Amino acid sequence: MKTSIAILISVIVTASVATAGTYFAINSSLPGNELWEVYDEFFVDAKYVDLTHAFSPTIPVWAGFGHAKFKPCVCGQKIPGYAELGEEFTYENHGFIATAYELSTDQYGTQLDPPAHFNPKGATIDKLPSTYCIRPLVVINISDKVKDNPGYRCSVEDIKAWEKEHGEIPAGAVVMIRSDWSKKWPTNDFLSFPFPGITLDALKYLHEERHILFHGHEPLDTDTTPEMVGEAWLLHHNYCQAEGVANLDMVPESGALLAIGFAKPEGGTGGYARYIAICPPDWKYGISIKETPGVPLPEAKEIHTRDEHGVLT
Amino acid sequence: MKTSIAILISVIVTASVATAGTYFAINSSLPGNELWEVYDEFFVDAKYVDLTHAFSPTIPVWAGFGHAKFKPCVCGQKIPGYAELGEEFTYENHGFIATAYELSTDQYGTQLDPPAHFNPKGATIDKLPSTYCIRPLVVINISDKVKDNPGYRCSVEDIKAWEKEHGEIPAGAVVMIRSDWSKKWPTNDFLSFPFPGITLDALKYLHEERHILFHGHEPLDTDTTPEMVGEAWLLHHNYCQAEGVANLDMVPESGALLAIGFAKPEGGTGGYARYIAICPPDWKYGISIKETPGVPLPEAKEIHTRDEHGVLT
Repeated sequence: MKTSIAILISVIVTASVATAGTYFAINSSLPGNELWEVYDEFFVDAKYVDLTHAFSPTIPVWAGFGHAKFKPCVCGQKIPGYAELGEEFTYENHGFIATAYELSTDQYGTQLDPPAHFNPKGATIDKLPSTYCIRPLVVINISDKVKDNPGYRCSVEDIKAWEKEHGEIPAGAVVMIRSDWSKKWPTNDFLSFPFPGITLDALKYLHEERHILFHGHEPLDTDTTPEMVGEAWLLHHNYCQAEGVANLDMVPESGALLAIGFAKPEGGTGGYARYIAICPPDWKYGISIKETPGVPLPEAKEIHTRDEHGVLT
Repeated sequence: MKTSIAILISVIVTASVATAGTYFAINSSLPGNELWEVYDEFFVDAKYVDLTHAFSPTIPVWAGFGHAKFKPCVCGQKIPGYAELGEEFTYENHGFIATAYELSTDQYGTQLDPPAHFNPKGATIDKLPSTYCIRPLVVINISDKVKDNPGYRCSVEDIKAWEKEHGEIPAGAVVMIRSDWSKKWPTNDFLSFPFPGITLDALKYLHEERHILFHGHEPLDTDTTPEMVGEAWLLHHNYCQAEGVANLDMVPESGALLAIGFAKPEGGTGGYARYIAICPPDWKYGISIKETPGVPLPEAKEIHTRDEHGVLT
């Protein structure tokens, strides 16, 4: 028997308004504010864990791509009395700075790969629907097996073991494979071979049997086969995948949500994602909005300067 | 009288498990899955609206910055038997493509400005806490006033009028100023002067009286004063702001949530955000996960090529 929480809440609201006056903290008398109530009850005290590596010119990247360059933003044309062509914008002279980037690839850092990365007709990143937003997060832990065998690949059996413990993976979930490989970040050992992966059968199980949204992994590739069978199957079948994911040892295997964010270049073929896990309030890791509202933000101890790689520190 | 929905749900679950067996669709017998229940009940049928312009080399940008360049990703070093230095990666020869970007500024497209953009000690974008994730969304509509006066600035009175109708703006919310200026996107008329803004008093009211997370607006600047008084006050007081926001005419003024995503460059001073509004299920705009699960993604009709600006089409 399944009864909707939404209906229950409506019933409770109606009953309480009728019998006991104002019920909720926020705008209780107005219809259409259920999502704010949900925020108030479930998201303010939740624990937020960032699954994203910041990217910079010195992070691990496949040699075939090469590194990004970070630079100060300079004036693109002469603006009389304000800035010369090519003049660097500075706090002192212009009141602001900005940053310019030469990004030699979008396969960089923590990524979201859309099908167009491999599939000549596949969706580009700007075509992902707005429903790529917040989803159940499943974490399958193969880190013990990877300790003994760095090239271990997550199998259907590993997934079924998770399901035996936690129940069936819900449709539409994001399934992250925890290998603890991300602990090598940002050293070059992160790029050593073999690295942990996931089998093609496991990917087919997740998509064809469980109808997940996408899977993610900590290394920068899906598997160690020369043909990249897993990634090729995914992208040619019009599924996305996440790469370079961090901090999966700090989230529960079941019961968290994942917020999916990314830069939205037109026709983009990958890149620059930000994944945040939203965990239950009693979870041992993460920060809550109540504890860390984020306003005002703390200042740095020293005035910013750019390091030898152009990164503002 | 305020009673927690969470406690209510616990009570109901306990009662129903005790009296009526399995209650929820997902893993009902396991503790710690309340967030998945919330997803199931409130997020699957919600309506998702993308508030983000895709960025490309031809979008409106301040002349002082200049445009981005999009290019095919090329091989960064000779890889014997696979690719020469500088060789473009192609679907035909390498099985994949990727994209390279020259981004002359991070003040480009739909943005999230951290304090470091103006404040020499202000937080950079990678320092925003993971609690910048999902928040109540307030939309204050000044579009009627902007029709008569394109330089109109949202005032404290406009905010108080919103509060009279909808109740007090909740702490931690994101407050977007709807001007319908984004309807001019991507023509150069978007850059015409004056454009709509927000007064310094209104910004102070939102932050100092209502303790919001940040505000956002549709133009690329906060106001039309020569000193940029609003933006300067915000960033020097260690608050963020959103710029270049789209589709605010397609979300409710109260009751939606906002998912906050952005690229995470180390030391970043702005840029490349993705904002998604999560609206009630009966809202007239947007798409739901149930209707648009996003897997598999639809293919393009034609094989991708790059246009004269390097954008994959």
